[in-house]
Amino acid sequence: MSAKCCQELDLPLTFDHTDIENFTEVGGLSISLLLWAVLNSAIVMVGGIIVAFFEPIAAGSGIPQIKCYLNGVKIPRVVRLKTLVVKVAGVICSVVGGLAVGKEGPMIHSGAVVAAGVSQGRSTSLKRDFKIFEYFRRDTEKRDFVSAGAAAGVSAAFGAPVGGVLFALEEGASFWNQMLTWRIFFASMISTFTLNIFLSVYNKNPGDLSNPGLINFGRFPVDGVAYNFYEIPLFIAMGAIGGLLGALFNILNYWLTIFRIRYVHRPCLQVMEAMLVAAVTATVSFTMIYFSNDCQPLGPEDKKEYPLQLFCADGEYNSMATTFFNTPERSVHSLFHNQPGTYNPLTLGLFTLTYFFLACWTYGLAVSAGVFIPSLLIGAAWGRLCGFLLAAITTPAPLWADPGKYALIGAAAQLGGIVRMTLSLTVIMVEATGNVTYGLPIMLVLMTSKIVGDYFVEGLYDIHIKLQSIPFLHWEAPATSHWLTAREVMSSPVTCLNRIEKVGTIVDTLSNTSTNHNGFPVVVQVSGSDEPEKLCGLILRSQLIVLLKHKVFVELARSRLTHRKLQLKDFRDAYPRFPPIQSIHVSQDERECMMDLTEFMNATPYTVPQETSLPRVFKLFRALGLRHLVVVDDENRVVGLVTRKDLARYHIGKHGLEELQLAQT
Amino acid sequence: MSAKCCQELDLPLTFDHTDIENFTEVGGLSISLLLWAVLNSAIVMVGGIIVAFFEPIAAGSGIPQIKCYLNGVKIPRVVRLKTLVVKVAGVICSVVGGLAVGKEGPMIHSGAVVAAGVSQGRSTSLKRDFKIFEYFRRDTEKRDFVSAGAAAGVSAAFGAPVGGVLFALEEGASFWNQMLTWRIFFASMISTFTLNIFLSVYNKNPGDLSNPGLINFGRFPVDGVAYNFYEIPLFIAMGAIGGLLGALFNILNYWLTIFRIRYVHRPCLQVMEAMLVAAVTATVSFTMIYFSNDCQPLGPEDKKEYPLQLFCADGEYNSMATTFFNTPERSVHSLFHNQPGTYNPLTLGLFTLTYFFLACWTYGLAVSAGVFIPSLLIGAAWGRLCGFLLAAITTPAPLWADPGKYALIGAAAQLGGIVRMTLSLTVIMVEATGNVTYGLPIMLVLMTSKIVGDYFVEGLYDIHIKLQSIPFLHWEAPATSHWLTAREVMSSPVTCLNRIEKVGTIVDTLSNTSTNHNGFPVVVQVSGSDEPEKLCGLILRSQLIVLLKHKVFVELARSRLTHRKLQLKDFRDAYPRFPPIQSIHVSQDERECMMDLTEFMNATPYTVPQETSLPRVFKLFRALGLRHLVVVDDENRVVGLVTRKDLARYHIGKHGLEELQLAQT
Repeated sequence: MSAKCCQELDLPLTFDHTDIENFTEVGGLSISLLLWAVLNSAIVMVGGIIVAFFEPIAAGSGIPQIKCYLNGVKIPRVVRLKTLVVKVAGVICSVVGGLAVGKEGPMIHSGAVVAAGVSQGRSTSLKRDFKIFEYFRRDTEKRDFVSAGAAAGVSAAFGAPVGGVLFALEEGASFWNQMLTWRIFFASMISTFTLNIFLSVYNKNPGDLSNPGLINFGRFPVDGVAYNFYEIPLFIAMGAIGGLLGALFNILNYWLTIFRIRYVHRPCLQVMEAMLVAAVTATVSFTMIYFSNDCQPLGPEDKKEYPLQLFCADGEYNSMATTFFNTPERSVHSLFHNQPGTYNPLTLGLFTLTYFFLACWTYGLAVSAGVFIPSLLIGAAWGRLCGFLLAAITTPAPLWADPGKYALIGAAAQLGGIVRMTLSLTVIMVEATGNVTYGLPIMLVLMTSKIVGDYFVEGLYDIHIKLQSIPFLHWEAPATSHWLTAREVMSSPVTCLNRIEKVGTIVDTLSNTSTNHNGFPVVVQVSGSDEPEKLCGLILRSQLIVLLKHKVFVELARSRLTHRKLQLKDFRDAYPRFPPIQSIHVSQDERECMMDLTEFMNATPYTVPQETSLPRVFKLFRALGLRHLVVVDDENRVVGLVTRKDLARYHIGKHGLEELQLAQT
Repeated sequence: MSAKCCQELDLPLTFDHTDIENFTEVGGLSISLLLWAVLNSAIVMVGGIIVAFFEPIAAGSGIPQIKCYLNGVKIPRVVRLKTLVVKVAGVICSVVGGLAVGKEGPMIHSGAVVAAGVSQGRSTSLKRDFKIFEYFRRDTEKRDFVSAGAAAGVSAAFGAPVGGVLFALEEGASFWNQMLTWRIFFASMISTFTLNIFLSVYNKNPGDLSNPGLINFGRFPVDGVAYNFYEIPLFIAMGAIGGLLGALFNILNYWLTIFRIRYVHRPCLQVMEAMLVAAVTATVSFTMIYFSNDCQPLGPEDKKEYPLQLFCADGEYNSMATTFFNTPERSVHSLFHNQPGTYNPLTLGLFTLTYFFLACWTYGLAVSAGVFIPSLLIGAAWGRLCGFLLAAITTPAPLWADPGKYALIGAAAQLGGIVRMTLSLTVIMVEATGNVTYGLPIMLVLMTSKIVGDYFVEGLYDIHIKLQSIPFLHWEAPATSHWLTAREVMSSPVTCLNRIEKVGTIVDTLSNTSTNHNGFPVVVQVSGSDEPEKLCGLILRSQLIVLLKHKVFVELARSRLTHRKLQLKDFRDAYPRFPPIQSIHVSQDERECMMDLTEFMNATPYTVPQETSLPRVFKLFRALGLRHLVVVDDENRVVGLVTRKDLARYHIGKHGLEELQLAQT
């Protein structure tokens, strides 16, 4: 609950400093605490209920889900309108409920959902089809839109259009396409421009286009000596600290998530946990503020909204309360830009400690919540502490010992240590601070924190992706996998279909749960010969289902000459929710009919010989965005099929190459 | 020749305004003109001689060559040390000689050469091998370094590290690789950082890291109303003008280049043309300055170095002279940032007109020279003129009618109309002006100028690439090429080698000029059977040459058991200049020996069936960076080979799909 609410509730804010002691004596503060905790819990309860009961996929920041989607893994319901609604309502509840969360991750997810929805020109949640953009009703096209939407989300959140493009590329792209990137960039630009227009009107200064993002880190001055050579080792050391703290955060969150998967999987338990966290957050904040005696003079130039006096003398305000009692975004801004001496070191240390554990506990709750801003806040706090200590050690304190600068470096280090993004994060930080001079330090810090962090544990998003057993393909094949060949990784034997196949066989193949592939090689046997069957094409499960639904049987085509020919539109209309095979009724007579797959199959599927090494297969998958790759022998006979799952299974673990157990998605 | 030289030569600069009239009466100005023209010609002659006689590849900006190199086309000598030396010396001569050129393109080329050289750890020009970085002696690795070098060049030239990365991606990348991009970004950052350090020392303010690039467009103010909604159509209109002017520039330059290819191909003629251009440039500039009566008051706040008084009253300076008599970079800066009213419209109009033709004539001369800055200068001049006219039409002139802003938009439009880059250029312009607010207008302008320009003619770089008949692969296969299949585009029949092949056959194959492929399919026949030969691998010309050079023959291996086994190192040592087949002596006896290719060939080459469509083949080439693709029938027999050249041949011309004649490189 923000200070604004308190003010509306007539809680004391800046009265005479004896008032607060009278108020405390009559037990007023206990009531304040109770009121605060209960209100926060209630609001978080609402957010928890809509997420846990209505749309569990809307929990968390959404970035892991978008990463997987862009990687080519189909995650159900991740880009639906319902998810968007729950996400937006949920993140409002989380932020208002005073949890240690940010709203930037959800914003990126929201951008992606909007883009996916707009591109399809219809909504299954609303059961409306606007009959537009039918061309885009394909996986690849839709994925391009989702990239652009995510980029636009980053752009709006941080005012970083180029950072948004690089985010989309870093997380999603495999084949670099100039036109696509240009379109993504255009979307990002329009996004930050639109936001800017609205913000300028909101700030009653229409036309002032200097608020490119929702978070404003504040501009660091461009002129003058920003930093010196000999500070670079200090920055790198802070990067290492960030890596260590990030790894600790991730390990704790990993254990917590495993605990949650085992014991807190019922929706009502999840809601209760969220409420508990909200109450604890309120209580801890309250205690910290209560016992803090970090009073700072309230200068006339201070533009803090709602400074909290509490036990401070008149004309002073409680510095700890400023940190806890603002939105996290504003706290980050204060830590970056306030004058040296605004916070005392004990405040910063205690704040770091408590906020670290609160944020760690909060991420993974069944509420919509991002981890970007809490990470930045933790980092900014200990970064500022570092700056303070440096200034204290060096006497006389040199000009460059600006704690705000160290807060920026600390924030980058902590965020990098947790999420392990490098390229896009550097650009985002540079764009959000509006100063390219800090580019190199931020880059070095992010690199260090990634290297240090990776030594202990993976990034937070990757941990959550792995815990959900998603067949996620990384950038490169595992380093030691070159001795594996396609023969070892492929699924074999493969169910093949004949070019002219009996309907019954097709229905049985699709219904068989053990052959749950999404693509089937089509083979042909030279009639009357003894020769083995040769590969002649590949057909998708979705195509077969549409064919069955429209009963495109050879016999029917003959009998009904006027039979409408199946068109591309029929496939697009069915996208993306092809009916399950069980819902398609095929009579016993029809089972005896034949289907001619020739004109529907992909006649020139990509193939590899059995001896192809795993890295080469991997490269084909990544570069071409494949989902299935047929393995053939030197007679062009099908010997196996490699799917994404077969590749994602192999990864480098502690004991060399390991095979993962992947979910049956 | 810059104003500084004049000062050293004791030419009159800011004397009393009657002095100049006395000086003119005694014919002083004719001598000045003569001196200027002769000196400039002499300097340009030096630049022309080293380029035309010693290293013709160092002519021009070098960006087309780098584009081709990154596209995967091997252009001889483009990344050699000698090229670098000539390029650097040549561009100094061109700039000092007062030609209408920039030094940014050559800087990008230089960055690429440095990167290529460093990565190889040796120089053939110097005949030194430092025995380091041997791992990088491969085409793909070297190309990655060249990307990074080009990015570092952009970064240093414009202070745009992110723009540099995007430039490298836009021009070179096909397969997006996170690690590679990150490394390129790191190189860019280090580049701008190093430059910044040196500039801060040069400007006697060490540690002031606010000069990220060599060109400084000057920062546009970040706060306040930058532009209004209703200016956007104006910007777009200016984009269209830029597209038209750019197309005109390109068409004129195209005709000029064809004329040069036909009639000015002897080095001494080329040097003479360069000298002529230098003399004409000096004369035209002189005439323009002489007849100009655009006198502006010399305010105390004016920090112009070397203002030229000429016929102006005391305390005034000649505005036309400022435009012509500065380095182009400084002129662009003045056009962007000088107060409204600094230039009168006639000056701007005349300057645009003359500089347009001078720049057009200059590009393509046998001197090292870039086209970026001249384009920006032309655009800034007519852009400022547009701003002036707008302010004149609207009374009272609104606050936003800042001619500097229109100069920026005009510069973007003109440059976009000539080179047709979009993504990277937007980011470069945004980074160079330090203001993300102008991102959207610049983007819209670049897009408009590209669309308008593409309607008439290709971009300048593409024109020059096409005139050199280079098999350059664009982003996408031509739109109407889907009906073409691999069978139509492939080269056939293909010379195949057996797995165990006679040395004589190999030597003959390599010597045969009609089979000048760089890759040969290796086939195997099941012994004693009647079955056709099947594909079992692919071997490169360079590998065969190394094998022949080391005489890796089956017979010799048997007789000399201690024979050193051929290692990867032997292939790396020979890289990149494999000796021609004629230089390898094979005796008549040795011709009868056999070579076993099994362990050297690529055993799992990429193959496609004959029916594969051209776009699909194209996608494989682009995504995987292939140079050869074997076409097989359904028995896995070789039926043809597709090379880059086969693909680059097809492009969309005026009459639909056309076949190009490509050079025999």
